[in-house]
Formats: sequence, C-alpha cells, structure tokens
Amino acid sequence: MGYSTSRSGRLDATFAALADPTRRAILARLATGEASVNDLAKPFNMSQPAISKHLKVLERAGLISTGLDRQRRPRRIEATPLKEANEWLEKYREFWEARYEKLDDLLEEMRAEQGNKAVTKKTRRKKNG
Amino acid sequence: MGYSTSRSGRLDATFAALADPTRRAILARLATGEASVNDLAKPFNMSQPAISKHLKVLERAGLISTGLDRQRRPRRIEATPLKEANEWLEKYREFWEARYEKLDDLLEEMRAEQGNKAVTKKTRRKKNG
Repeated sequence: MGYSTSRSGRLDATFAALADPTRRAILARLATGEASVNDLAKPFNMSQPAISKHLKVLERAGLISTGLDRQRRPRRIEATPLKEANEWLEKYREFWEARYEKLDDLLEEMRAEQGNKAVTKKTRRKKNG
Repeated sequence: MGYSTSRSGRLDATFAALADPTRRAILARLATGEASVNDLAKPFNMSQPAISKHLKVLERAGLISTGLDRQRRPRRIEATPLKEANEWLEKYREFWEARYEKLDDLLEEMRAEQGNKAVTKKTRRKKNG
C-alpha cells in the first residue's frame, strides 16, 4: 500500500496529494480508465520525469495503483482515500448548508424590504401629489 | 478574502491547508463556536506563534475568518472552501461506491462458494459413511 496506517496520516497524505492541479487532472484522466505514464504525459505536455514525480505522490497517498502489466505499468485510480477525505468533509456539511440557508433568508428579507420601500414610496408620492 | 480567485487555486489552498492534523483539529474546535488564539492554543498545548502560523494558513485558504472584536480577535470557521472541496470529491463518489459494491458482490460470491463446499463435504461424508 505504501501509505501511513493511521487515518489521520492517510488524510494528511490524501489532502497534500490533492493540493496540486496537475495531480487532480491526472486523477480526472484516470477516472475515465487506466493509463500508462506515456498516455498521461501526452495531454499534460509534461516530461515523463515530471509526471512520474506526481504519480509517486499520488501512489504514496494510495490514490492510484500500478497494474501488473510489466511493459505498460498502467496506473488506475483508487477510491478509498477519496472516500475517507469525503467522510471528513461531510462532517462540516451543516456549515455550508446553514450558510446558504442564511443567505437565502437574507435575500428573502431584502426582497421583502424592497417591497415595503416600494409601497412606502408609492404612498408618499400619493400624499405629495 | 486573501485567497486565489480561480477555483483551481482555491482548491490548491484548501487541500494544502487540510493536509495537517493540527489545522484539521483547529477547524473541528471552531465548528463548536468561535475562539480566540488563546482559546485555541490551550487544548493543543502549543505556543501562540505556532498556532498563529496554522491560523494564517487556514485564513489564507479562506477556511477561517477573524471577527471584529479588536481585543479577542475571535476566529470562526468559513464554509465555502469546504463546500468546494466537497464538490470536487463528490465527482468521484461513483468510484468508491462501485468499489464497495464490488466487495459486497465478492463477499456474496465467497459465501455462496462456502455454502457449496459445505454441501459437497456433507454429501461426500454421507457417501463414505
């Protein structure tokens, strides 16, 4: 496996591996099917060593594994670390849901207020007119 | 706001900030309510400068913000980066769900096979007995 056995250590490795746009793009590519280093290097317009370095970080985090084909050494995406990272984030779901509920409430309030103002203005205009 | 305007840049900062057990623990603490640096330093048994450094990383990623009270400078959790990180991970949900479905299938198969073996053994025993 090659990654830390504690859940906290695995989360460190997973989040660190995900903190790079190339590595996230590699995972997005592997989500469509397994690929060799050559396959992966092409669309990224990167040297093989540069890609290999990113693959090593992903593999250490357990986010990818290497198939048995000795020639192609195809990489494939591994789901477990993504699942664990997702589970960690899910604990905070109430925060962003509450936050967006609050924004909805605020918007509703502003709309109601705008409505009241419009009514007040009309009333005032009538009085003055 | 102090964090990159592109979504990819924000994800980099968020995942990097989450790749540390102390910073994840600070967020877990702030999930129970806002807290000053002093409040935060106590349970972590860390110096104020060490905590401040972690808070800076979290603040740059937009994961926390500082309240207006000049004396206490309370920090509070901000939900948006967590929501965006969650949205990124959700795209991969099918992988871990498929993975666990496959494991379930395998388990089912193994159980069925064990069942068959048990039956075969019984039949053999009867024949020999």
